[in-house]
Amino acid sequence: MTGPTAHPPTPEARPAPTAPAAPLAALARATGPGALLTDPADRARLATDRSGHRPDGLPLAVVRAGTVDDVVATLRWATAHRVPVVPRGAGTGLAGGATAGAGTVVLDLGGLDRVLAIRPEDGLAEVEPGVLTAELDRAARALGLRYAPDPASAESATIGGNIATNAGGLHCVKYGVTRDAVLGLDVVLADGSRLRTGRRTVKGVAGYDLTSLLTGSEGTLAVVVGATLRLHPLPPRTGTAAAYFASPEAAAAACAAVLDAGLRPSVLEFLDAATLAAIDRAGGAVAAGGQSFVLAQTDGFAAEAEIEAVAAVLRRTATRVEATAEPATAERLLATRRAALPAIERLGRVLIEDIAVPRSRLAEAARGLTALADRTGVPVFTFAHAGDGNIHPIVLAGGQDPAAVRETVDGIFRLALGLAGTITGEHGVGVLKRPWLEAELSAEGVALQRRLKAALDPLGILNPGKAV
Amino acid sequence: MTGPTAHPPTPEARPAPTAPAAPLAALARATGPGALLTDPADRARLATDRSGHRPDGLPLAVVRAGTVDDVVATLRWATAHRVPVVPRGAGTGLAGGATAGAGTVVLDLGGLDRVLAIRPEDGLAEVEPGVLTAELDRAARALGLRYAPDPASAESATIGGNIATNAGGLHCVKYGVTRDAVLGLDVVLADGSRLRTGRRTVKGVAGYDLTSLLTGSEGTLAVVVGATLRLHPLPPRTGTAAAYFASPEAAAAACAAVLDAGLRPSVLEFLDAATLAAIDRAGGAVAAGGQSFVLAQTDGFAAEAEIEAVAAVLRRTATRVEATAEPATAERLLATRRAALPAIERLGRVLIEDIAVPRSRLAEAARGLTALADRTGVPVFTFAHAGDGNIHPIVLAGGQDPAAVRETVDGIFRLALGLAGTITGEHGVGVLKRPWLEAELSAEGVALQRRLKAALDPLGILNPGKAV
Repeated sequence: MTGPTAHPPTPEARPAPTAPAAPLAALARATGPGALLTDPADRARLATDRSGHRPDGLPLAVVRAGTVDDVVATLRWATAHRVPVVPRGAGTGLAGGATAGAGTVVLDLGGLDRVLAIRPEDGLAEVEPGVLTAELDRAARALGLRYAPDPASAESATIGGNIATNAGGLHCVKYGVTRDAVLGLDVVLADGSRLRTGRRTVKGVAGYDLTSLLTGSEGTLAVVVGATLRLHPLPPRTGTAAAYFASPEAAAAACAAVLDAGLRPSVLEFLDAATLAAIDRAGGAVAAGGQSFVLAQTDGFAAEAEIEAVAAVLRRTATRVEATAEPATAERLLATRRAALPAIERLGRVLIEDIAVPRSRLAEAARGLTALADRTGVPVFTFAHAGDGNIHPIVLAGGQDPAAVRETVDGIFRLALGLAGTITGEHGVGVLKRPWLEAELSAEGVALQRRLKAALDPLGILNPGKAV
Repeated sequence: MTGPTAHPPTPEARPAPTAPAAPLAALARATGPGALLTDPADRARLATDRSGHRPDGLPLAVVRAGTVDDVVATLRWATAHRVPVVPRGAGTGLAGGATAGAGTVVLDLGGLDRVLAIRPEDGLAEVEPGVLTAELDRAARALGLRYAPDPASAESATIGGNIATNAGGLHCVKYGVTRDAVLGLDVVLADGSRLRTGRRTVKGVAGYDLTSLLTGSEGTLAVVVGATLRLHPLPPRTGTAAAYFASPEAAAAACAAVLDAGLRPSVLEFLDAATLAAIDRAGGAVAAGGQSFVLAQTDGFAAEAEIEAVAAVLRRTATRVEATAEPATAERLLATRRAALPAIERLGRVLIEDIAVPRSRLAEAARGLTALADRTGVPVFTFAHAGDGNIHPIVLAGGQDPAAVRETVDGIFRLALGLAGTITGEHGVGVLKRPWLEAELSAEGVALQRRLKAALDPLGILNPGKAV
């Protein structure tokens, strides 16, 4: 799978302050042996993320933190010398949240990668931020548990990055987003001081909810060095159903009907006609005449009965439905959903967008995206976490006129806001979506966000120019 | 049901700043006709909440807001004249969060009581803050939906108060707390400016999560004048099971086993031996020899099958289990849980405490509370939302030595913190729990909370001396 590429140029974030002759020697002494990298190749490699966005210039250096002490030392040094720090997980972000330009120091947390404890008796895990999402899930599965949030990048993304962006995934429709899984955080503040937030209990209302505030703050308020995460019992069984519909309206209405019936699918996904055509062209197995595709899964104690109930709802309006509790058949049904992004990426460079709309506007959004692509001439493929109204329009940028691509991306965000939605459902704002942030939050909303930023990071050390 | 009474005296919060000759005439002109109450009887009546705590002196006045403009005008006036404002819902709080002393103005939001819209197509409601929790639920039920958070005070508490305390209830084990139901807020800031937070979509990561920060902030960061709330489909069926166990350890282990089996009960409650004895004494129907009681409910598409699965787990270790999907029988089983607080309150004035511990420490907490009562001689009755580890120790204060009651209350909080728990699971900190807050959050944690408070309310207008 080739990576997506940068958004078209957007109004640039204000440049990060530059460090006048930052004493890197002091940083090298303060951190562990070999932690400080100054080789231009390392600095270039760790200056961008999966967005492909490259700020002007290279960062001053990279600290590969091997211990929490390295994080503390880096932030103390950064505060003393007023050097901006860009925290970084695995760099799988799509919004440019981990991009680092001239005058900054990259703080790579990928080396803090231990699962410290899994406590089945309390349904929780304690981890360092560099643990890969899928690795935590595997460690939990060995004990009959599961880590529910499952971003598409789970095999390569870190928990710290997931927390920074409040990552989502397919299971959110039943289990919630990363924020719903984070019970507590161990963080280092901009001045190098440490703080624990949250708790190991499910409920708790002592003090403001710093845990929720920090989750999704894209490294701009604090650096996460540990997390207490909620685990769920590993479901013994799953059920899977796939359905084709004649229109996006019919598909969206069927998804809503499933949820309105009180059924709680663990996956509820939508693919549009353009995406199905791309899969078809790539040799994938798509039912002839399918215009819109819905994939549903159920889990839990009555997964088989529940998928039958889901399928019964889908059958009311679908042109074709297949449901199974048998793993091999389920794999075949899942293949269509899995084939979507690779099939589109075969066509050229893509931009993976990430809007969300109220559930009832899903079909309108899908129609709007098709109309937008027709208008600008830039192909747009739509797939969605339908149960959450979270849509990933994939813009085929490769070989297209850059101005038309820009118009298409802008049109996507305007469409989301026009449907009472948001410019980002689960990927974050980073640098790439800041130009549209005020349109969503209002000028007053952005101003208040900046007051919170100033309260936690008065010198603007942490990931300046991102998120707010 | 008689109300609980105040905690024993605790180290007092710093006194609120007093207003030198606050020009109430200007406030009367700025608010709607009849909105300003200055009669001492009104001021006394609205100066406390269900905690019974009374600060020194009476508030200067009460504004009964009839419109959002009244709220804006009150906060502008308060900012201009540096007068602290105590926002207030129905005054059902148990931690003294809505108590108002000399020099303050009470801002009563109970009159903003409209359900503005229920949107079944998006599974959400838009409400004003004075709507009673149970009324919203009834309005939702008429459309086949439900508002899940169900604090014991649902019939008399307001949504605004629920948001201020991040209220819980019996359904949290499956549906989450109030914070999980709040998608967006319409608030007035301390200076009288308005702001919308959040969104109408299920997912969204544009900007910091102000909605979560404000939920549970006990009126110290902003005044909620509107909320967008998530609704769930009304389950067509429920199942109910009641079980008796020989020990709290057996009961707690059975509750954990239910959750570990991947079952998702919508209610999972625990009563201890002292509570069962009180119900027995009050003439309630308690099974002979029952030492610990567990009540479970299921809902959703397979409620009958799921309650049978729950009962099967409970039967492994219970002395007696009864399960039903039949409403009349369910009512009988529920009666024991419902009888608990009234039976205890017959014995005298009570303090309703609210700690939470990791799920695995529930039995230890129950044993610890029994030992504490034995040590201090003050009766303590324990019931718990077992699925969340959220425990309500009920302290019988009436007729007891005040010093022993104080020692008991202190012992409850120390016990919670010693078991890696929290001093408040769902009631809030208010004024009464502030003395124990630093022991839970650390001095650094409290300092950071105060920085956030200062960022949003630099003059300290909003509910000073509460929560942080």
